[in-house]
Amino acid sequence: MTIILNSDDIKKCIQLNDELIPIIEEAFKSLALGKTVMPPILRLDIEKYHGESDVKAAYIDGLDSYAIKVASGFFNNPKLGIPSSNGLMILLDSQTGVIKTVLLDKGYLTDVRTAIAGAISAKYLSNSDSSIAGVIGAGIQARLQLESLLLVRKINKAYIWARETEKANKFCEELKHLNINLEVCKLIEDVVKKSDIVITTTPSKTPLIKNDWLKKGLHITAMGSDAEMKNELEPLIVKSCDYYIPDSLSQTKILGELHHAINKNIVPADKTYNELGNIILNPNLGRKNKDDITICDLTGTGVQDTAIARHTFEKATKLKLGTKVG
Amino acid sequence: MTIILNSDDIKKCIQLNDELIPIIEEAFKSLALGKTVMPPILRLDIEKYHGESDVKAAYIDGLDSYAIKVASGFFNNPKLGIPSSNGLMILLDSQTGVIKTVLLDKGYLTDVRTAIAGAISAKYLSNSDSSIAGVIGAGIQARLQLESLLLVRKINKAYIWARETEKANKFCEELKHLNINLEVCKLIEDVVKKSDIVITTTPSKTPLIKNDWLKKGLHITAMGSDAEMKNELEPLIVKSCDYYIPDSLSQTKILGELHHAINKNIVPADKTYNELGNIILNPNLGRKNKDDITICDLTGTGVQDTAIARHTFEKATKLKLGTKVG
Repeated sequence: MTIILNSDDIKKCIQLNDELIPIIEEAFKSLALGKTVMPPILRLDIEKYHGESDVKAAYIDGLDSYAIKVASGFFNNPKLGIPSSNGLMILLDSQTGVIKTVLLDKGYLTDVRTAIAGAISAKYLSNSDSSIAGVIGAGIQARLQLESLLLVRKINKAYIWARETEKANKFCEELKHLNINLEVCKLIEDVVKKSDIVITTTPSKTPLIKNDWLKKGLHITAMGSDAEMKNELEPLIVKSCDYYIPDSLSQTKILGELHHAINKNIVPADKTYNELGNIILNPNLGRKNKDDITICDLTGTGVQDTAIARHTFEKATKLKLGTKVG
Repeated sequence: MTIILNSDDIKKCIQLNDELIPIIEEAFKSLALGKTVMPPILRLDIEKYHGESDVKAAYIDGLDSYAIKVASGFFNNPKLGIPSSNGLMILLDSQTGVIKTVLLDKGYLTDVRTAIAGAISAKYLSNSDSSIAGVIGAGIQARLQLESLLLVRKINKAYIWARETEKANKFCEELKHLNINLEVCKLIEDVVKKSDIVITTTPSKTPLIKNDWLKKGLHITAMGSDAEMKNELEPLIVKSCDYYIPDSLSQTKILGELHHAINKNIVPADKTYNELGNIILNPNLGRKNKDDITICDLTGTGVQDTAIARHTFEKATKLKLGTKVG
């Protein structure tokens, strides 16, 4: 029998809260320790419909199950009145390959585990007294990243920029319940210069943030770039910052901000960097001074999917949720 | 709502019969015409448990849905009393990425579409009066390949070889209903020398068939090699045969019989070959003389998965099968 969990089941198990932080931290630690099998992402593009499906998978040594995740983005969908994101996760038995559960999350678990990675990035890399956030973009991740940041930092003010000001206004309206001061900026430069922590959440193909704008002590979480052509930071930033920390070095060399810095010969292709998991294992490898500028480059990893799929399944089993199909 | 089809539903829709031949032929034609997006296979190995999961995916231009398929093989499973193979297929809407159905086939559809590819290979490449088959291996594919071959050729005799003679005997016992003369051979050489069509279905890592054994007019379908280390034919055969036909040239360069011939510098890496789809489109590109030796190298393609998943879903919809989960 395979247990099918639908969106409602999954949302009963998983909400964006600090319970998930140690779960995703463990995943990053395993990745940094090399205790994982995480093959390159499979990506299928359907250009005609401005759509793509990504498949990620990771086995974490010693765990009794592993996930394979399909995440799709079809960017004409909003015109049709349906969300861009979609997908599911499959949890398989590590010893037999038997499918334990199919999680019909429609991208929800990916959204949540990505937001939690942002929180982890800020927790370990930003100054602990950071109180002002800057958010570039006003989509689902912009919302979740800001919400998630509140789990680890006492933010009292956030500046928002979006290509369409209307969307930024709507963002502020919809996030009133966070009880922080939200202000729309017309220039990205203003957001960056006024914030302690900046989160970039766009699918931009040209850099949005310039090196000249970075002030001392800033932390940036760049989570928009998850494909070769996407690029949110001026590539020079990777070299000029004090700490560049990827979620997965092998991935950011191919599709993160690092990849653009390598392509422009700003940093050598064989230069190594500590990953987020190394910083979690030993926080001394990250920020040392209040003035350090830190960058965390998140491309999204299969180990996060395995961690959140396993956690969801555990909770669903306890709550006896799901439909058995066999 | 997503429709979940279980094994019973799927077996009500799909049996190994000639209805599937044109469906899979169309898939190969699209591949040969370049009307597909078929990314490289994602492969996750769990060495500790002698297990692997492969993910294949293909979009065929113009079709309203595409499949992503997970197929796992865990080779210690038989010791635990469960089958090695497992998996599922997901059918997504080409325009929106919305998941139409999850097919919990446990590998059945992969088995069937692979067997049908073998039939297509023999239909286009073997001599039409071939009457003697040779089967190397005695697993599920050995059975299905022989059954499938009967759809396209009047076979009255088959020779079987398996590493364990006991398994070959069991094979003959279980395939009595095919009403052909089945005989176990102790030497692969005998099978090859006595047969008009040979099908190799093993996970062998060292060549089983030697170039010296090939007689005029022979057709070989080599379908066992679907991973880098697997190798059933002496690499020289790729060069010495009259027609070497891969299912997907880009795949057999990486993980088929061709890959070993390239690695051993027997054929140049940039040599091109007609694919099975080219032969279907224009049979004159294949065998020209009764004495020609033809080899078809099947590694298994995402387009076959997309074709059979679509066909299953169509039939299931007509029969109103499946469980709706939303």
